[in-house]
Amino acid sequence: MPAKDITDLKIGVLGGGQLGRMMIQSAINYNLDISILDPDENAPCAHLVKHFSVGKLTDHDTVYKWGQNFDLITIEIENVSVSALKQLKNEGVTVYPQPEIIELIQDKRKQKTFYKANRIPTSDFVLTENAADVANHQDMLPGVNKLGTEGYDGRGVQMIRSEADLPKAFDKPGLLEKLVDFERELSVVVARNEKGEMDCFPVVELSYHPEQNLVEFLFAPAQISSENEEKAYKLAKDVIEKLDMVGLLAVEMFLTKEGDVLVNEVAPRTHNSGHHTIEANRTSQFEQHLRAILNMPLGSTELITPAAMVNLLGEDGFTGNAQYEGMEECMAMNGVYVHLYGKKLTKPFRKMGHVTITDDSIQDLKSKARKVKDTLKVKA
Amino acid sequence: MPAKDITDLKIGVLGGGQLGRMMIQSAINYNLDISILDPDENAPCAHLVKHFSVGKLTDHDTVYKWGQNFDLITIEIENVSVSALKQLKNEGVTVYPQPEIIELIQDKRKQKTFYKANRIPTSDFVLTENAADVANHQDMLPGVNKLGTEGYDGRGVQMIRSEADLPKAFDKPGLLEKLVDFERELSVVVARNEKGEMDCFPVVELSYHPEQNLVEFLFAPAQISSENEEKAYKLAKDVIEKLDMVGLLAVEMFLTKEGDVLVNEVAPRTHNSGHHTIEANRTSQFEQHLRAILNMPLGSTELITPAAMVNLLGEDGFTGNAQYEGMEECMAMNGVYVHLYGKKLTKPFRKMGHVTITDDSIQDLKSKARKVKDTLKVKA
Repeated sequence: MPAKDITDLKIGVLGGGQLGRMMIQSAINYNLDISILDPDENAPCAHLVKHFSVGKLTDHDTVYKWGQNFDLITIEIENVSVSALKQLKNEGVTVYPQPEIIELIQDKRKQKTFYKANRIPTSDFVLTENAADVANHQDMLPGVNKLGTEGYDGRGVQMIRSEADLPKAFDKPGLLEKLVDFERELSVVVARNEKGEMDCFPVVELSYHPEQNLVEFLFAPAQISSENEEKAYKLAKDVIEKLDMVGLLAVEMFLTKEGDVLVNEVAPRTHNSGHHTIEANRTSQFEQHLRAILNMPLGSTELITPAAMVNLLGEDGFTGNAQYEGMEECMAMNGVYVHLYGKKLTKPFRKMGHVTITDDSIQDLKSKARKVKDTLKVKA
Repeated sequence: MPAKDITDLKIGVLGGGQLGRMMIQSAINYNLDISILDPDENAPCAHLVKHFSVGKLTDHDTVYKWGQNFDLITIEIENVSVSALKQLKNEGVTVYPQPEIIELIQDKRKQKTFYKANRIPTSDFVLTENAADVANHQDMLPGVNKLGTEGYDGRGVQMIRSEADLPKAFDKPGLLEKLVDFERELSVVVARNEKGEMDCFPVVELSYHPEQNLVEFLFAPAQISSENEEKAYKLAKDVIEKLDMVGLLAVEMFLTKEGDVLVNEVAPRTHNSGHHTIEANRTSQFEQHLRAILNMPLGSTELITPAAMVNLLGEDGFTGNAQYEGMEECMAMNGVYVHLYGKKLTKPFRKMGHVTITDDSIQDLKSKARKVKDTLKVKA
């Protein structure tokens, strides 16, 4: 990191979506000089920073040219031009997370191969080049077929339960993972700064929507034994250390019925499984990300109150200018925090916002989360 | 209020300083369409909203012309053109707080007269037209001499301890208040929406810097008896109801040695004595202000953790581009939240930011607050 006051650093962020938006809300507290690049002139971050540029994140020249203006570059989405970031890094721009790590994580095949090579526990898998290849691995069924790249927000991932599902197998380079008969899905967000200081946010428990493959409910803390909690922290720290990464890493995990904790996937950035930290923890994941990449001391990750998080998805059957139904009812509930992402257009299952719910009673928390989910609707 | 979704309302805010800046951080969560008017193109809110206009807040034509674009107008500073707001209100724009209340509060003479007329307990006072007038009221000494208007952030207020101080008396319309021999200085921020729902934030205790007349430390909750607490809430609600005000009102009070609670001054907006609510309460004062003026249900004002707040003032003897000393040390302290206001230039005692400190132990809280104050410095 350049030896400058953090308020004097010119910081560029690739991506201007909701993660960038919530990062800006934190960055305002430190008066950080943040610029954004995003392909959409109406992205959630538009108008929230002095310099918002429109451009393709995967285009080498666009990213390279834009990136020359900064002391420090970070991302809020991993689908960006790694070659441009590598070039910028070579020319002296600090890039966190490091481009090599973004490159590794962009490709689920490389990601899984990395776990295997580094003895990081993960589910069994085979690399597949095409649909025929997938069909050749019936011993891996029931399994999860993933595209190596191009997957995001539930796309590029599908179940292959049995032979009958084989016709829908991806006919592109990907992988087939043996389905894990898990007890729970967990996530740990871990931060690491240049000095190598690391800190994990408390383990959370995720429940996915069966069809959209998007987080439906999140609960913090996870209802697991302290022994399993320790396994999860150890695993998260192990991954970020072996990556030698600076920044924030979200590590999604399976807790198996046998009590093993396996890495599912990781994201080298702020993550949907850390949104509740804005209200429920001493430090939010957005601030922690900034602290990590600025090489500042990490903040306390302590959970102040049990919390739940519900994603606010565009209602099925509605496409057009977003209208929010049930806002007033939700705002009348104690400890309910609505976050709208400022997306003008809604479409089925588009992430339009999230709601964090806090309550000292786990039971009340669950019923309030359910109520929020049933009340707040994004229509057009 | 117009019957529109809150995300569809066009909202104008007069003033783009730190209070507007923190309001914007909250408004982002609700995707509110906020525009700002401020005389300074580099104001703390510049670049944080889609529409930031530069113009004089006290100029009728500027405010009137700008204001015609909105469904709802609010303020973050009370020194604005009331005549323009009245005209806009007459033409159908919702203005909260109401222009008549801003007008009353702009003039400390009218404010005090209102308390007296409405039997709201306050210190004894006389209206004075000039310095000679002040000298004629030696029976009111030791006293506080205030200008009727033009006072802000510690300006326009001075002590007249004895006859010897009389030569410095203000030679303009003002007032002379009998000095209150107080036990503590308290503040209650109270919100009220269109439906008449009211809610107070827990009483806080303020300690002022002896020279600059600015808040030096704030502690929440105030260390007072529940009986005195009740008196403070009753008084705050009494004032906002008698004003028939919609919005947020900060009521600064004296707790006398005899156990009386007197109103000192009020501000019809978010206030320095509510900054800690961002981290320490279920709902922040900035969100509560928005809820009140949008006629939404008020949020829970519950204090989650004891908190202190320290204003970060420009160090005496330094004028120029702000540099922040001691940031890293402060960020390494648990439960310490730095808020910089994004002002480029520092000058002696200018409000450049604030720091909120949280801790379960009141004693640790006080020592951490003192440490923050001694560590974090704004120089040039």
